[in-house]
Amino acid sequence: MAKLRYRGGAYRGWQAQPGAPNIQGAVMAALKNLTGDQGPLAAPSRTDAGVHAKGQLACFDLTSSISLNQLFKGLNNELPSDIAVVDLVEVPPDFQVRQNEGKRYIYRIWTAIYSDPFFENTHWWVPGQFDLDKMLHAAPQYLGSHDFCAFRDRCCQGIDTNKSVTRFDITSRQIEAGREIEVTIEGKAFLHKQIRIMVGTLVDIARNRRPANFLDQALNAKAYAAQIGSESVRTGNYRGHAGQTAPAHGLTLDQVFLTPDPFETRELEDWRG
Amino acid sequence: MAKLRYRGGAYRGWQAQPGAPNIQGAVMAALKNLTGDQGPLAAPSRTDAGVHAKGQLACFDLTSSISLNQLFKGLNNELPSDIAVVDLVEVPPDFQVRQNEGKRYIYRIWTAIYSDPFFENTHWWVPGQFDLDKMLHAAPQYLGSHDFCAFRDRCCQGIDTNKSVTRFDITSRQIEAGREIEVTIEGKAFLHKQIRIMVGTLVDIARNRRPANFLDQALNAKAYAAQIGSESVRTGNYRGHAGQTAPAHGLTLDQVFLTPDPFETRELEDWRG
Repeated sequence: MAKLRYRGGAYRGWQAQPGAPNIQGAVMAALKNLTGDQGPLAAPSRTDAGVHAKGQLACFDLTSSISLNQLFKGLNNELPSDIAVVDLVEVPPDFQVRQNEGKRYIYRIWTAIYSDPFFENTHWWVPGQFDLDKMLHAAPQYLGSHDFCAFRDRCCQGIDTNKSVTRFDITSRQIEAGREIEVTIEGKAFLHKQIRIMVGTLVDIARNRRPANFLDQALNAKAYAAQIGSESVRTGNYRGHAGQTAPAHGLTLDQVFLTPDPFETRELEDWRG
Repeated sequence: MAKLRYRGGAYRGWQAQPGAPNIQGAVMAALKNLTGDQGPLAAPSRTDAGVHAKGQLACFDLTSSISLNQLFKGLNNELPSDIAVVDLVEVPPDFQVRQNEGKRYIYRIWTAIYSDPFFENTHWWVPGQFDLDKMLHAAPQYLGSHDFCAFRDRCCQGIDTNKSVTRFDITSRQIEAGREIEVTIEGKAFLHKQIRIMVGTLVDIARNRRPANFLDQALNAKAYAAQIGSESVRTGNYRGHAGQTAPAHGLTLDQVFLTPDPFETRELEDWRG
C-alpha cells in the first residue's frame, strides 16, 4: 500500500478515465513501467478534479519481486513531479483499504482584497466582505448525523444521504489586511462534493448572501421543502436548498484513518535508507 | 510605492530585458494599460531568475490622476496571477527606496527521500544524507562583516566585496521521515547570488561534500588562496573557494527594511474598502 501526495490541478481527479489525465492512471502507468504489473488500485477516496491529497492511500498487488526501497525510488522516479509516493508498507492480500474509519479533509480559504500568488493553487480566494463570526457561529450545526441530501452533487448516486460529521473546526489567522481560514472536516464517509458544498454554504452565509438560518433549513431540507411546497419533494433532488459548491482547488484530502494503521504498526523497516 | 508579491518561476528575474519575461516589465505593462504612465520602476533588490518575493517594493511616478483604490484594483486586474500588488502607499517625489536599511531573505530546503509536490516550486529538495548539526554548527560564522569575495557570481560587478550579515537563523521541523529547513538571512546589501552561495556552501558541508573547516577557508578566501598558492590570487576571482550555488526557486525576498517605513507610518487610509 502506498501513501500518495499530489497537487490535483492538472488532473481530472483520482478515477481512471480514458482521454483525461487522472491520478490513478498516472500511478498505474508508473507501476507498469517499473514492474510490469498494473493491477487496479484500491483507494479510500476518489478525489475530484482539481482536489489535492496529502495522504491518499492506494493498494495494489505485485507479482514481480522488488524491494520496498526499489519500488519507492522507482515509482517516484517514474511519476510526474506533482505526484509523489511518500511512504510504502506491505499489507495482507485481503487488506480492505475502503473499509477505513474515516477521512480528514482540509479546506483553505484566503479572504482579502488581493489574490496571493502563493495561495493561488491551494486556497479559495474570496474578495470583499466576509463576516467570519457568522461562519464560526453557523459551523457547529454540521456536527453529528444529518440527512445531507441538499449537500451532494446532482449526479451523486449515493443511496443513503445520512452522514455523520465528527469534526468541523475552523481556524484562521490574520495576514496583512487579509485572513487565511482553514476548515478541518472529519467523518466516516461523505457524499459526492459534500465537503465543498458544506464549505460553500458557510461562505455564502459569511458573505451575507444567505440568511443565518439558511444552514438549519439546508440540514433539514426534506422537512423544509415539504413546508414551503418546494418541487424538490416531487423530484427528490434537494441540491437547491444548500449553498454554492466551493471550488476544488481549495480542498485537500489530508488523512485516511485506518485502525490499526499499517504505517504505524509496522515493525521498524530500514528500506528508507 | 507598491509592495509586490510574486512567484518567480516563470520569470527571468526582476530586471527588464527584451525578449524575456520579467517582473519589472509585467508591472510596467500593467501600469501603462491602466494609466498610460509607465515610468521606470525603482526597486531595492533585483531578484534573479526564478527567485520569489513576498515583499518586493517598487517606486514609480504617475502623471495621471487615479485613486489608490482604483490603482490597486486595476493593477491586480491587469497583472498575471503569479504577481500581485499587496499594498500601496504614497511617498514623496524624492523618496529613495534603494537607500533602505537592508533586506530579509528566506531560503527553504526540503531534505527527504521524496520530493514533496507541495514544496516543489518553493523548496530546494536535497535527497540523501544530510547532517543538520554540521549546518547549524557552521552557520554562525557568517554573522558579522566578511570579505565575501568567494560568495559572488563570477559575473558580479560589485567593487566592494565586504558585506555584513546581521542575521543568519536556521529553523527546521521534522515532517514524516524528512525535514523542512528555513534559513533566514538579513543584511544591508548582498553581492550577486551571495545568499544562494552561502546556503549552497552550508548544504555542501551538511552533505559531507566539504570538510567542516571549508566555511572558514571560504570566508578568508584571499588569505587562504595566498597560503596555498591558488591562481585566484592572479585572476582576482575567488568563486572557486566557496561551495555550490543553491537553486533560485528556494529563495524568497521576504522583506525590505525602511526607516521610517511609509507603510507603517501612513495615516489610516480607507482606500482598501
